Amino acid sequence: MAAVASGVGQRVPRTDSADKVTGRALYSADVFRPGMLHGAVLRSPHAHARIISVDASRAVALPGVHAVVTRDSLAADVALIVEEEAHAARRVLDLLAAEKVRYEGEKIALVAAETRELAEQAVALIEVVYEPLPALIDVAAAMLPGAPLIHDEQTVATLDDGQVLHNIAGQMHRTNGDLAAGWAAADRVFEDTYTIPRAHQTYLEPQVAVAEVDPQGRVTVWTSTQGHFAIQSNISKSLRLPLGDINVIGMTIGGGFGGKFGGVVDTYAVLLAQASGRPVKLVYSRHDEFLDGRPAPGLRITIKTGVTHDGRITARECWAYWDVGVGSGASWATGRIKGVYDIPAIALHAFEVHTNKPAPGAYRAPGAPQVTFASEAQLDSIAAALGIDPVELRLRNLPDDKPQVAFRRTLLAAAEQVDWAHRTAGPDEGWGVAIGEWTNGAGPAAAVVSLAPDGGAQLFYGLMDLTGTDTACAQIVAEVLDLPYERVRVTRGDTDSAPYGTGSGGSVALFSFGNAVRDAAQAAREQLLELAAAHFSDQAQAVTVADLETVDQQVRLRANPDKAASFAELATLALRQGGPVVGEGRFSPKPSAPTISAQIAKVHVDRGTGQVTLLEFAHALDVGRAISPVSCEGQMEGGAVQGLGWGLMEEMLYDPQTGRNLNPDLLDYRVPTSLDVPPQQTVLVEEPTTHGPFGAKGIGEPPIAPGIAALSNAIAAAVGVRLEHPPFTPERVWRALQGLDPGPART
Amino acid sequence: MAAVASGVGQRVPRTDSADKVTGRALYSADVFRPGMLHGAVLRSPHAHARIISVDASRAVALPGVHAVVTRDSLAADVALIVEEEAHAARRVLDLLAAEKVRYEGEKIALVAAETRELAEQAVALIEVVYEPLPALIDVAAAMLPGAPLIHDEQTVATLDDGQVLHNIAGQMHRTNGDLAAGWAAADRVFEDTYTIPRAHQTYLEPQVAVAEVDPQGRVTVWTSTQGHFAIQSNISKSLRLPLGDINVIGMTIGGGFGGKFGGVVDTYAVLLAQASGRPVKLVYSRHDEFLDGRPAPGLRITIKTGVTHDGRITARECWAYWDVGVGSGASWATGRIKGVYDIPAIALHAFEVHTNKPAPGAYRAPGAPQVTFASEAQLDSIAAALGIDPVELRLRNLPDDKPQVAFRRTLLAAAEQVDWAHRTAGPDEGWGVAIGEWTNGAGPAAAVVSLAPDGGAQLFYGLMDLTGTDTACAQIVAEVLDLPYERVRVTRGDTDSAPYGTGSGGSVALFSFGNAVRDAAQAAREQLLELAAAHFSDQAQAVTVADLETVDQQVRLRANPDKAASFAELATLALRQGGPVVGEGRFSPKPSAPTISAQIAKVHVDRGTGQVTLLEFAHALDVGRAISPVSCEGQMEGGAVQGLGWGLMEEMLYDPQTGRNLNPDLLDYRVPTSLDVPPQQTVLVEEPTTHGPFGAKGIGEPPIAPGIAALSNAIAAAVGVRLEHPPFTPERVWRALQGLDPGPART
Repeated sequence: MAAVASGVGQRVPRTDSADKVTGRALYSADVFRPGMLHGAVLRSPHAHARIISVDASRAVALPGVHAVVTRDSLAADVALIVEEEAHAARRVLDLLAAEKVRYEGEKIALVAAETRELAEQAVALIEVVYEPLPALIDVAAAMLPGAPLIHDEQTVATLDDGQVLHNIAGQMHRTNGDLAAGWAAADRVFEDTYTIPRAHQTYLEPQVAVAEVDPQGRVTVWTSTQGHFAIQSNISKSLRLPLGDINVIGMTIGGGFGGKFGGVVDTYAVLLAQASGRPVKLVYSRHDEFLDGRPAPGLRITIKTGVTHDGRITARECWAYWDVGVGSGASWATGRIKGVYDIPAIALHAFEVHTNKPAPGAYRAPGAPQVTFASEAQLDSIAAALGIDPVELRLRNLPDDKPQVAFRRTLLAAAEQVDWAHRTAGPDEGWGVAIGEWTNGAGPAAAVVSLAPDGGAQLFYGLMDLTGTDTACAQIVAEVLDLPYERVRVTRGDTDSAPYGTGSGGSVALFSFGNAVRDAAQAAREQLLELAAAHFSDQAQAVTVADLETVDQQVRLRANPDKAASFAELATLALRQGGPVVGEGRFSPKPSAPTISAQIAKVHVDRGTGQVTLLEFAHALDVGRAISPVSCEGQMEGGAVQGLGWGLMEEMLYDPQTGRNLNPDLLDYRVPTSLDVPPQQTVLVEEPTTHGPFGAKGIGEPPIAPGIAALSNAIAAAVGVRLEHPPFTPERVWRALQGLDPGPART
Repeated sequence: MAAVASGVGQRVPRTDSADKVTGRALYSADVFRPGMLHGAVLRSPHAHARIISVDASRAVALPGVHAVVTRDSLAADVALIVEEEAHAARRVLDLLAAEKVRYEGEKIALVAAETRELAEQAVALIEVVYEPLPALIDVAAAMLPGAPLIHDEQTVATLDDGQVLHNIAGQMHRTNGDLAAGWAAADRVFEDTYTIPRAHQTYLEPQVAVAEVDPQGRVTVWTSTQGHFAIQSNISKSLRLPLGDINVIGMTIGGGFGGKFGGVVDTYAVLLAQASGRPVKLVYSRHDEFLDGRPAPGLRITIKTGVTHDGRITARECWAYWDVGVGSGASWATGRIKGVYDIPAIALHAFEVHTNKPAPGAYRAPGAPQVTFASEAQLDSIAAALGIDPVELRLRNLPDDKPQVAFRRTLLAAAEQVDWAHRTAGPDEGWGVAIGEWTNGAGPAAAVVSLAPDGGAQLFYGLMDLTGTDTACAQIVAEVLDLPYERVRVTRGDTDSAPYGTGSGGSVALFSFGNAVRDAAQAAREQLLELAAAHFSDQAQAVTVADLETVDQQVRLRANPDKAASFAELATLALRQGGPVVGEGRFSPKPSAPTISAQIAKVHVDRGTGQVTLLEFAHALDVGRAISPVSCEGQMEGGAVQGLGWGLMEEMLYDPQTGRNLNPDLLDYRVPTSLDVPPQQTVLVEEPTTHGPFGAKGIGEPPIAPGIAALSNAIAAAVGVRLEHPPFTPERVWRALQGLDPGPART
């Protein structure tokens, strides 16, 4: 296939940009259904309390209220569930708090009413009597043997050494290599503790869903999600509905970053629609987001690393305490402590610790920014202690480049971008480098590519586009069919119509769907060429597909370019001969290779105020193959800004006494604006991976990983203080500069 | 594949019935877009007049009016079109009347305003000065040499014999066989003239469209149509827009019967949306439908048939004058004068005659009810004159049955249903028989069938369901996949997303799409079986697809039924191995075989009032294969009722002086209600056709063909008068019974 000006690797406008800038793109909040009600949620004002009683009678009596769902009403609904389905019934019941509330904002009851104001008014009429309990917000305090148990006795853990820990949701222990030998080989051993707070995904568009239930019980949900098939599956499981009775329509999404895989609004909107018999819209406010979203977990981590005098790492051990709130999970991410390096021996001890906070969720490269901060900040401390250049120290520990992975090349590309060897810094300025990594997963995907009678292409699939994947997939179709990109139309089907496909998370989207799209386009192309071969064949000459080429939206004979037929002619001919051109492509998971992100930050620190100003920022990413370079750069810039925000200002704050969130809004929980970040120097490194479409790797996640460390390292280089607890706010930096305790390190 | 209880041939509820009876089905009138305006049309009050001037200034000035489109404004819009596109520009201009109006209701100007009332008020403010011209409403008068020309000089035709005819839009002359020999072989020759008036399709839902144009000029249209790809193509041609810039969403349709292939509202809604920059809804009233719909053309036809004494037809000749209003077409249908019989020699002379009426359109089996009435009524007169039983006379002229066509079997099935040989009739009661025929065409079609992780199937395609085709296609998927019908979900894609497919007209829909659906399901089934074969294979045994069978939504080893995997397990396994199960099917036209419809009516005639009452009605149809028997019967009953309505009461009436429509509403244009038709005895004859899916033929059209003749024949049998001009209203019948002229026979 010939390269076309708008195919793979070309800089094209995104398919969705015009609709977004003109306001035509329809988000879930834009959905209005006839007779639609509005939902509101009664949330716990306490981080930890026993529920003595819930009286919803005044809410039920309020005119305009069509449904009030409480734990009791749910229990009545599921009372008939037979024994063997007890687990399923439990799942339904657990949608609302029962005898206890365990975090501020936990859902206690739901209301659907004719207006949102009325629904909120009804919520305020529900009377709940609480008996407050002590709140635990820090993992260290929560693990103490005397700490009240947030859940039950099963969260009391006894370690091998007899130590008893409270509120343990899960543990992971793993050793690779000969740790004793590693320590023995070390000339020096460094041990540091880092604490990273919770950060919220702060997608522009809060969680929102509209649910409708038809008279036969069939559910339709319009929602903002990264994976509409995942929502369908979640609702099916949560509410004991057959999968086929649920259609999920994924609307345009205003950001997800891992946080929009459902369960926060959609299931509740369905519950309210079932209870009221009317469509119901449930929208999170920003306040709701902070109280009852699923943000990144905080982490307290101690890391111990042995090195030789020349900077080679010999062993590493770490103890990680993940703040999982009332949830669980996250400890698996501790494995990232290895980073991208060759480390002969490594041991992990990870604990998931309950606190009185909401369950965490996925946030772009889940766990990677936290763990990468610890490992890459410590590496910089080691470099300083050993007097080795930080880039050089990393190069000494990085594996050699190999097919599919550009370990060193990526770091060197970032270094070259800022001319690292000759970098200069003014007073109180400093450079910091850090490397992150993410190996994309993969999921099932399918695509259908058809040709319209005018020769244009149509791509139909079940992919939610968060990051420009529609654009990249349109470019793949353009490339394979040798068609201008503008002539490819992309349509996302709902779960009723589209073949099943994985959600857009874990950097799997383009890797997975790109393969299916390429194969579908290839199948369509083959149909087109076979048709042309038959069309050009006559008694004098039997033409085969091998005799043909595609140029300028025409198929023609290589040997005789005058013998040509336009795609439009052939697509129209197909309608009479064989049927419309339609190809399908299917994909199931195949392995990818690590995507390396190397970032270099230059900062200035104001010694008077502690203010850290980012002066320069270079970022190299091994994207495998940049199918849509503009989208790649968008991912690099956006991901990096999120990492930098976490390092500079983002932190979910909880009151140590009450356990209540202290900054549940975007005024007090600050995220970077365009004024906080300089123009980024992005470098696309291309080391193709075998199973990626055209060699592309998943690239959504790695850009967020190294940012906190790069900042910490740059600050240390600038003013000589090592900050171990992000965010590096002016107050913390100033206190550190004064030699004061920089302030509490809370998860 | 095993037969399943809800597969092909089973009586299942229609996929759309629940949505329709619960009011959930969304019709185009249910579409409301943000900022949507409402359109109204200024129509000519004259059937024929010169337009002296159009002054829209007062309409333009009315507050709330956002667009006024006139011929002048269109001309300004297309003024820049260069010479070579003059034809295209002409097409745009011709959307509105220019120097003349040629029928009552012709569109002169369009308005879009904030409410429909306001739009109509603005229309009333447009001042048009007319110079009325004589109106022509009957073909006989319109053809006279002295008749004013409705169009131009090119409509003056000079025949071979020197005769000059006016207002001729087209002609068709055709002779097959040795006519002279045919006449020579005849013992008797019959010549009769029949006149059939215009009939309207009277779909329950009038024409309606909503159009929206985005800031880049891309058009979206929601409309009630039989073919959304046809609408896309029409708009592209009418308005000079690239095909890819138009997305058409076919909403639930409230009947079409051939009349909903576009051009009546959709193009105008787009024009108004372009002019106003806002979405515009344009809805026809029932009045608009009668004035400016595209009904069936009227016909005046003289038919001359030679027969032997024993009733064998030796020759036939006919002269047909189709009333094509200001349009053209229709004469091709004259070929149906042959009917289903072996006729050695036949000659046709068909003329399309302009009158001051709207252009006709397709109405279920276009032309067949009119022509079949003439041929089958005359055949009955011949039977009476020769003293031969009408069924027997037909059998003597019918070809032998052969594979794919049940000529005789179908007639005999209807006769058997009423025990024809022993039929009884009370005073003024009589039986009439008639046979109609339609051979379905075919069009391009494509379908995608995928399996959801729960093992349910999803069918996605671009088929507009008018008649139960979604149901039949779901049954095909159920049959091929051996799955309960309820587990098949059908989704219709818009023109952006669905592979191209033919519209639902000409009885092509199931014949064409059914093949594509079967192939898509078969491809999905093969994927499932291949996956199962790999899954069941182990070192001990290599399983192949041939070793497998499907039972109870499981794939299992024939030799060892314990070795089984459910569809859900396999569909889920596919997500990891090879990708989601997705099959595509494609179809291009292949020939079908005639579908024979034989109808027998028993009537009573009230000699005092002339009222004809239908007492019994039997109907046999060779459907090829009844994929969805319930839908087949629905087509038979509905089609028959339309034919009977045309025979009993339907007639578009025009004032002979002014040319204005005299019954432009459902009060005066009467259609049968359930009280007018007895329960029908439908018989499904199944003579499979080679290329039909499972042998199915297209069956939408034939049921309408024989009805008028069956009635006329029954009335003649009952009271001995032959009515040659439907509808057989009480007045006409009474007058005939009195020996009076039954009234004017107008087209």
